[in-house]
Amino acid sequence: MTRMALDRDTSAIDGLWAVIPAGGSGTRLWPMSRSSSPKFLHDMTGAGSSLLQATWDRLKPLCGDQIMVVAGVLHAAAVRDQLPELDSANLVAEPTPRGSMAAIGLAAAMLELRDPDAVIGSFAADHVIGEPEVFAACVREAVAVAHAGYVVTIGIEPTYPATGFGYIRVGDPLEIAGAPHGHEVESFVEKPDETTARGFLETGEYHWNAGMFVVRATVLLDLLADFHPELAAGLRHIAAEPAHLAQLWPGLANIAIDHAVAEPAAAVGRVAVVPGRFTWDDVGDFASLGSLLPDVAAAPGLKILGEADLVLAKDTTGVVLPGSGRTVAVLGLDDIVVVDTPDAVLVTTRGRAQDVKALVDLLKATGRSDLT
Amino acid sequence: MTRMALDRDTSAIDGLWAVIPAGGSGTRLWPMSRSSSPKFLHDMTGAGSSLLQATWDRLKPLCGDQIMVVAGVLHAAAVRDQLPELDSANLVAEPTPRGSMAAIGLAAAMLELRDPDAVIGSFAADHVIGEPEVFAACVREAVAVAHAGYVVTIGIEPTYPATGFGYIRVGDPLEIAGAPHGHEVESFVEKPDETTARGFLETGEYHWNAGMFVVRATVLLDLLADFHPELAAGLRHIAAEPAHLAQLWPGLANIAIDHAVAEPAAAVGRVAVVPGRFTWDDVGDFASLGSLLPDVAAAPGLKILGEADLVLAKDTTGVVLPGSGRTVAVLGLDDIVVVDTPDAVLVTTRGRAQDVKALVDLLKATGRSDLT
Repeated sequence: MTRMALDRDTSAIDGLWAVIPAGGSGTRLWPMSRSSSPKFLHDMTGAGSSLLQATWDRLKPLCGDQIMVVAGVLHAAAVRDQLPELDSANLVAEPTPRGSMAAIGLAAAMLELRDPDAVIGSFAADHVIGEPEVFAACVREAVAVAHAGYVVTIGIEPTYPATGFGYIRVGDPLEIAGAPHGHEVESFVEKPDETTARGFLETGEYHWNAGMFVVRATVLLDLLADFHPELAAGLRHIAAEPAHLAQLWPGLANIAIDHAVAEPAAAVGRVAVVPGRFTWDDVGDFASLGSLLPDVAAAPGLKILGEADLVLAKDTTGVVLPGSGRTVAVLGLDDIVVVDTPDAVLVTTRGRAQDVKALVDLLKATGRSDLT
Repeated sequence: MTRMALDRDTSAIDGLWAVIPAGGSGTRLWPMSRSSSPKFLHDMTGAGSSLLQATWDRLKPLCGDQIMVVAGVLHAAAVRDQLPELDSANLVAEPTPRGSMAAIGLAAAMLELRDPDAVIGSFAADHVIGEPEVFAACVREAVAVAHAGYVVTIGIEPTYPATGFGYIRVGDPLEIAGAPHGHEVESFVEKPDETTARGFLETGEYHWNAGMFVVRATVLLDLLADFHPELAAGLRHIAAEPAHLAQLWPGLANIAIDHAVAEPAAAVGRVAVVPGRFTWDDVGDFASLGSLLPDVAAAPGLKILGEADLVLAKDTTGVVLPGSGRTVAVLGLDDIVVVDTPDAVLVTTRGRAQDVKALVDLLKATGRSDLT
């Protein structure tokens, strides 16, 4: 064993392109997240950078400038503003949301033309990851497995019986150089109920599906061509003739990459998993966001995202987001969620955080889409 | 019995002057009520007029133009704006808050000079009264008793064992023409605990003390001269020499009319009570305010004061006051209180409504008096 092998490898990963699908409107984070300004553009952790910027910063040491962002045309300008280092050739503006397969597949088709050996790693713009060096080591293994022809997922080791995520059932270990933790994927499992989730944790054979895929661009598109030939052909056509984007895009199938490729490929033994021992969260709602924030020193159980001086809390636990410059006073409430923005204020509880989506639906149904 | 006696008397009451002390900052109604804009200036019931205007409208049929308002100098302009009919000679601007005895006593001293037989009826600017005609009949009886030389309180028949009000113990009936319901007052009782309050209600001998006093101006000041001679002399001096107001006012004793006159006068048999069978509330906090508002038709248990279109509520009961033009969304909370204003939003519960004062104290203690 050489000295180099003992040190953690911090060099960029040869041939790896990161693809950041910056989609999703974060409806359950309304009114902080809006369709015009979705959650990936916001600093959701108080770290001083948006989720998108944090994703960029996490990937840059692994990929250098080889980072492609796929965003809705409405958000392209904001993405450019937040990522001054992003080359305009690496920003793909989707005319309309068309599902994760079209978004990631178009990036893959473009990169396949630039470099037939390119490996892409797809990492959502709106996830929070705790230990970047653990993440990096994991991606490095995943790339090694991808070079062997697999679609590689990074599976998060579950810390509680979550019912809000899908699961990955881990199969036999793979014997691939540079990827000591690589395993086959037995199958993908939809979001379980809590009893089922508990069972999953007891077996130790299930990981959370965080939607992270590492795969050679050509492998991904060839697999897609097996399962959805028209979609694969359409994406390759657009990559070859970018001027046809606007015309062809609306005709593409709107499907998630999990259903389009990952699940059917797992069924034929083409999907692998590398376990991720880093903390991970998809910041799905305000309860989840609250769990990422530290307690206010003087008020155990109270989390504040934003200017703490604007919050006046007494006998209160929960999450408060002052976001309009106004003072937010909360008295005598447990597990409360208060989100203050310039044109709307939300008051709910951690327990109902998932149902914020219903309020957004109600706004749309009552002619107040301008607020969503 | 003539035909006139059978009809309800709706004429003005000869010799009666209404005095409206417009004081108190309504701290428990923060952030709606502020020191710069106290609750009496606000429409607290959705009636379309402020509490002060509603008080004026209630008294005008009884007193015509004989209504005097005593307000802090900081609020005088707002009072003038809200009451265009108020003659400037009938607006007394207190240089600083000096307690209800000084406020009402100065009005009494001024009116005593204009009319030695004047009867004054003091009615706070920030109370809500349900049935104006019942109230009027009650005042009419109180004036008859006042002409006989009594300090007359209007005692509210209690509807529940309130712990937030003082009580009046009713004594023997009086035999005074025009006042069939007049009784002596045995004593005033401080705010009781709930057990004591229940006991009061069982006896039927106790009324709530709503702080309404009807008395000849000269009787009030002569009684005050018995108990607090310097204060009585000071007030009569200012009334005679208004130019001395600024100089003398700060030296006056700061005392409530209850302690200064009503209680000691009751001890010597000079106080009477006329029972009020009208609904009454002092709108002390948001719980009390909520109980005055009708339910939202589509959402039983939800009360809204302000533009209902701004409120988006689901599975929610309580009180919501949208007051900044922003949308207020509330999801899954019972007995919640949300008060939205342009520079502060309050979230609490009906149960903690009394403690809002503590938040205001906290604002002052942390250098944010500008918000109070």
